[in-house]
Amino acid sequence: MSTQSFHPPQRTLMGPGPSDVSPRVLEAMSRPTIGHLDPVFVTMMDELKDLLRYAFQTSNELTMPVSAPGSAGMETCFANLLEPGDTVIVCQNGVFGGRMKENVERCGATAVMVEDDWGRTIDPDKVEDTLKANPNAKILAFVHAETSTGVQSDASSLCALAHQHDCLTIVDCVTSLGGTPVQVDEWQADAVYSGTQKCLSCVPGLSPITFSDRAMESIQNRKTRVQSWFMDLNLVLGYWGGGGKRAYHHTAPVNSLYALHEALVILKEEGLENAWQRHELHHQALRAGIEAMGLTLVVPENERLPQLNAVAIPDGAEDAIIRAQLLADYNLEIGAGLGPMAGKIWRVGLMGHACNKRNVLLYLGAMEAVLNGLNAPVKTGDKGAAVAAALESYSN
Amino acid sequence: MSTQSFHPPQRTLMGPGPSDVSPRVLEAMSRPTIGHLDPVFVTMMDELKDLLRYAFQTSNELTMPVSAPGSAGMETCFANLLEPGDTVIVCQNGVFGGRMKENVERCGATAVMVEDDWGRTIDPDKVEDTLKANPNAKILAFVHAETSTGVQSDASSLCALAHQHDCLTIVDCVTSLGGTPVQVDEWQADAVYSGTQKCLSCVPGLSPITFSDRAMESIQNRKTRVQSWFMDLNLVLGYWGGGGKRAYHHTAPVNSLYALHEALVILKEEGLENAWQRHELHHQALRAGIEAMGLTLVVPENERLPQLNAVAIPDGAEDAIIRAQLLADYNLEIGAGLGPMAGKIWRVGLMGHACNKRNVLLYLGAMEAVLNGLNAPVKTGDKGAAVAAALESYSN
Repeated sequence: MSTQSFHPPQRTLMGPGPSDVSPRVLEAMSRPTIGHLDPVFVTMMDELKDLLRYAFQTSNELTMPVSAPGSAGMETCFANLLEPGDTVIVCQNGVFGGRMKENVERCGATAVMVEDDWGRTIDPDKVEDTLKANPNAKILAFVHAETSTGVQSDASSLCALAHQHDCLTIVDCVTSLGGTPVQVDEWQADAVYSGTQKCLSCVPGLSPITFSDRAMESIQNRKTRVQSWFMDLNLVLGYWGGGGKRAYHHTAPVNSLYALHEALVILKEEGLENAWQRHELHHQALRAGIEAMGLTLVVPENERLPQLNAVAIPDGAEDAIIRAQLLADYNLEIGAGLGPMAGKIWRVGLMGHACNKRNVLLYLGAMEAVLNGLNAPVKTGDKGAAVAAALESYSN
Repeated sequence: MSTQSFHPPQRTLMGPGPSDVSPRVLEAMSRPTIGHLDPVFVTMMDELKDLLRYAFQTSNELTMPVSAPGSAGMETCFANLLEPGDTVIVCQNGVFGGRMKENVERCGATAVMVEDDWGRTIDPDKVEDTLKANPNAKILAFVHAETSTGVQSDASSLCALAHQHDCLTIVDCVTSLGGTPVQVDEWQADAVYSGTQKCLSCVPGLSPITFSDRAMESIQNRKTRVQSWFMDLNLVLGYWGGGGKRAYHHTAPVNSLYALHEALVILKEEGLENAWQRHELHHQALRAGIEAMGLTLVVPENERLPQLNAVAIPDGAEDAIIRAQLLADYNLEIGAGLGPMAGKIWRVGLMGHACNKRNVLLYLGAMEAVLNGLNAPVKTGDKGAAVAAALESYSN
């Protein structure tokens, strides 16, 4: 057994997350641990909630980070809002809609699925038909930004439809928050969860959530107890809720919360609109370079997430070998496809701190070299064409 | 809203946890984030599991950290081992036995309680009687080290009793791991969970668990699905399990795992037996000082946890004011009592990295000064007597 300290290599993270973490965030996280009930810490928690409200564009009182990764944030939404026997309409156009279905069923509720092709946006017409056909549905659940395919759906329209049919909404914004507009109040979304390791460029392990007053009312009117003690917001809010008193529920992940606070301060400094523009700018340069190599993005243009680009793996290219070579030769990580997309796409992230010119050029140069290399003799056109196209995009 | 970075004060953490984190751990945590499927990270995960096996004194294959705090580790044990309709015998002699009951009930199972006084060990005779009276019980659940009172119970005897009655065991070792002997294989314990922020001196946010083969078999033979998707070990083990392949389940808290790895390397360097002796040594000095001040430990001598000392709050001393003064004047955190112990005890931790001579003297000197101060005119005997008694204890 090793008794050596672990020293990770310095990668560039251009997969679906975790994305590169800002050195400021890493440094903040390494500050001395203090108690989770320390009055100074409680002040920090209040700031953190305000900063999250800014990121989510909401004034929701219940806005806080769950002390566990995004999938626990998802489960927190379902476990608190569902009771056995409820009906939930779940949209699926990728992996995470399927995970929502699992959550619904494990809560003893019924999921009515609205399926769209992987790599395509959610069709609001189908959702409307399903809402009409299921007047007893309590909740509409969908993924705003599908991390498995790089597709974004029209959260505003979907929330409006849900409200017309008297449904609450659960919205997955794991990959969108901080990278592309998430407008919780404008959408009138009811329960929204995200992750820290995508466009917030924070370490993985926390899941910001925000709940509307309507959602809170639904929780307060439950007839049964939430099946998870750890995720029961009635209890969690004794610690994270408003008011002076902070009752112990679980020990908060103190240092990870320092990290999230710092990541949100950085977002606030840049400004949300600027961050969204930056993601769009570098996405366009990346796109130009990818197309100049003769590769294609699988998602139609108006359905793409700028921060997560699904690139079709060209014929003759060996998925795993190429990703291994990028990692070995360039310390560059890109993501594989999931489920039916495995072996068919690469997921190239440009998220948060990692969304910059340097990384666009690194990816394009490295990918061109590897694709034309010995292990993957794919013809990608003129040497340097991809980088040139990206630079051309920046100069426009 | 603040857009300032957060700079915590440098506290000395002598409460019930989080305890002071080693600078080595903080530094390890701030190393660059890499992907949760990076082959280098996977190697680190394997080392981490081996190091946890050492800490738990087990060869259990399923030994890993849950990606959330100790209370999620507790819930992982209950949610995976229980099915609706099961009967669980739960011992309660403090807060955490009560939390176990909550977990049992939320799994749709029935808790048969064995109650002991708060501040006293679990009585094996009562447990035996309850096992006899409930031949259908599937599990015996108890807390080895009650964090709310500083009591330790005889895990070895309790596990033996459970086995005689064909029950599995769930054992809470949150506060014991690394501070006082936890012998999972010798006890033949079946599902054991701990926390990182106690005697491992790591940051809060992770929960190491270990499951015996018998417990794993029970999970594999479930008739119903685990009600939590996030905590379902059948799924989690696709990522953390043995074998080469690591399937994505959730995004691991990469940097927190660096921290835990480093904390366990430190434990291995010192050696478990040495760590246990160190906790006993400083506990004895602390005890001598506390008694020299005329204060009393509420737990009988042979039931005490060396790493968590429950001190009776003397008449005339105002709990909250004194703790606030220790924090303000000495940057020293000690813990309040919980539940029926609130206002009656202070919890003074000597855990992991914080268990040292310097902290013993700091606590005794500061407490003597504050107790004799203007806000809390408690007579504690001769000036300096507490520190002198501790030093005398060390010289023996």
